[in-house]
Amino acid sequence: MSDHHAKAPPEAATDSRPRRRLFVTETLVERAEIIPPREVSHRLLSVLRLPPGEVVALFNGRDGEWAAVLELAGKRDVRLAVSHRLKRQPVEPELQLCFAPIKQPRIDWLVEKATELGATRLTPVITRRTQMQKLRPERLEAIAIEAAEQCERLSVPRIEPAVALERLLAAWPDDRPLLFCDERGEAPLLALVAPPAPLAMLVGPEGGFAPEETAALRARAGVLPVSLGPRILRAETAALAALSMWLGAGR
Amino acid sequence: MSDHHAKAPPEAATDSRPRRRLFVTETLVERAEIIPPREVSHRLLSVLRLPPGEVVALFNGRDGEWAAVLELAGKRDVRLAVSHRLKRQPVEPELQLCFAPIKQPRIDWLVEKATELGATRLTPVITRRTQMQKLRPERLEAIAIEAAEQCERLSVPRIEPAVALERLLAAWPDDRPLLFCDERGEAPLLALVAPPAPLAMLVGPEGGFAPEETAALRARAGVLPVSLGPRILRAETAALAALSMWLGAGR
Repeated sequence: MSDHHAKAPPEAATDSRPRRRLFVTETLVERAEIIPPREVSHRLLSVLRLPPGEVVALFNGRDGEWAAVLELAGKRDVRLAVSHRLKRQPVEPELQLCFAPIKQPRIDWLVEKATELGATRLTPVITRRTQMQKLRPERLEAIAIEAAEQCERLSVPRIEPAVALERLLAAWPDDRPLLFCDERGEAPLLALVAPPAPLAMLVGPEGGFAPEETAALRARAGVLPVSLGPRILRAETAALAALSMWLGAGR
Repeated sequence: MSDHHAKAPPEAATDSRPRRRLFVTETLVERAEIIPPREVSHRLLSVLRLPPGEVVALFNGRDGEWAAVLELAGKRDVRLAVSHRLKRQPVEPELQLCFAPIKQPRIDWLVEKATELGATRLTPVITRRTQMQKLRPERLEAIAIEAAEQCERLSVPRIEPAVALERLLAAWPDDRPLLFCDERGEAPLLALVAPPAPLAMLVGPEGGFAPEETAALRARAGVLPVSLGPRILRAETAALAALSMWLGAGR
C-alpha cells in the first residue's frame, strides 16, 4: 500500500494545506483505507471534481486531522488512503447550546453558525411558546458536518434529541452553570463566564419564554440570567451573539 | 384633532407596549399626522390586520419612539395620529461595519443581524477576491428597517455606497481605529476595543483578503489586526462575531 502514499504530491502532503477537508466516522491511523459512502464519492468526484492523487484532509472528531490520497475504487467510488497526521486533536471545552427550535431556514443558520463558533452540543429545548417544528436531526447533523469541514474545525457538534424545558431543568446538575439568555437579564454575559470552563447556554423561542418558565429558570440553582444587550434579539441572533461573546471572552 | 387621540385605548397608549413598531421618515411631534406610503398601509391593514384605533410605535432615528393611533384615511390608506412620546432617542456609539459583499441570502442575513447587533453604518468594500454582486441598496435598507422594527431599536443603520478597499484606506483618518478582522490576527478583539468609543470593523470576502491587501492593511496607521478565534469563519459569521464581541465587551 505504500505506493499509494508515494502518489501523494509531496508539497501537498507536507507544506500546503489540502484544499478539501472531509469528516469521516472511521478511525484515522497511518495506512488506513477508507471507502466513503456513495454520496460522498459523488461529491468528491462529480461536484468538487477532485482528481485521483489529490490530497484531502480527514477528521473524525477523535484522531486529529490526517492527510489522505484520493484514489479511484471503481467507476463511482473513491478510496481514501490515509498517509500522515497534519494536526493533533485539540481539547475542546464543552460548550452546550440549548435552544428552542425555530423554523427553517433560521434553524439551519443557527446550526451552521453555532458550529463555526465552537458549540460542542446542540440541544433543542421545547418551551411553551416553541412553534414545534418536525426536527430532522440527520439534516441538522449534515449542516453541522459541512460547517465543520469549512471552518477547519476538527470536531462536529452533537445534535441531541429535543427535550422539554421542565425535563431539562429537572435533570440539571446544581453545580453546572446554565447561562439563561434573558431579555430582562441584569448581568452582562462576560461578567459570568470564565472560559474555558464547560459552559451551557439557553436561548428562548421567538416570543420569548413564558412568565412561568422565566420564574422557574430564575428559581433554579445553577441558572444565571444574563443580558445580551439593549435590543430584542431574534432567537438565532441571541444564540450566535452569546456564543461569540463567550468566544471573545475566552481569548 | 384631539378626538383622534381620545380614541387611543388608554392602556395601550400608556402602560402596555404597542405590539407593532414602524419606521417612518417624517418628523415625530405631538399631534403630527402621518400618511404612510400605500405599501405600508397595505401591510398594516391587510397583512398585520391592525384595526382602527390600534396604537403603534413610530420611530425615525431622530425623535425617539412615539405612540400613534391608526386611523382609516379612505379605503386603502391609513393615517397615523401621533400622540405622545414613549422613549427618548438614545445616543448610539458609531459602529461601522465594513464588509466585502457576499451572495444572497448571506448578505441579507448579515444586514439583518448587524442591525440587531447595533451597527450604525454598513459599508460594502470591494476587495480583490470579492465576487462582486449587483448590490441593491434599497433592498438592503428595507431589510435593515424591518430588523430595526423587530428588535426595538430606534434607528436604522445607514447602507453606504460600495467603495474599493484602496479608496477606503486612502481616505481613512489616521486617528480612527479600524479593527481588521484577520484570520492571522494576533490580538483578541476584546483586548483592543474600548466601547463605547466610535469603532469601525473590516471583514473580508469568502476566500479572505489577497496577500497584498493584508500587507497594505497591516502597514496602514489606525488599522488594528484582530483575531476572532481559532476557526476560519465565513464572511458573515466573522462580521456578526466581531459585532457581538464588541457588544459583549461594551456592557
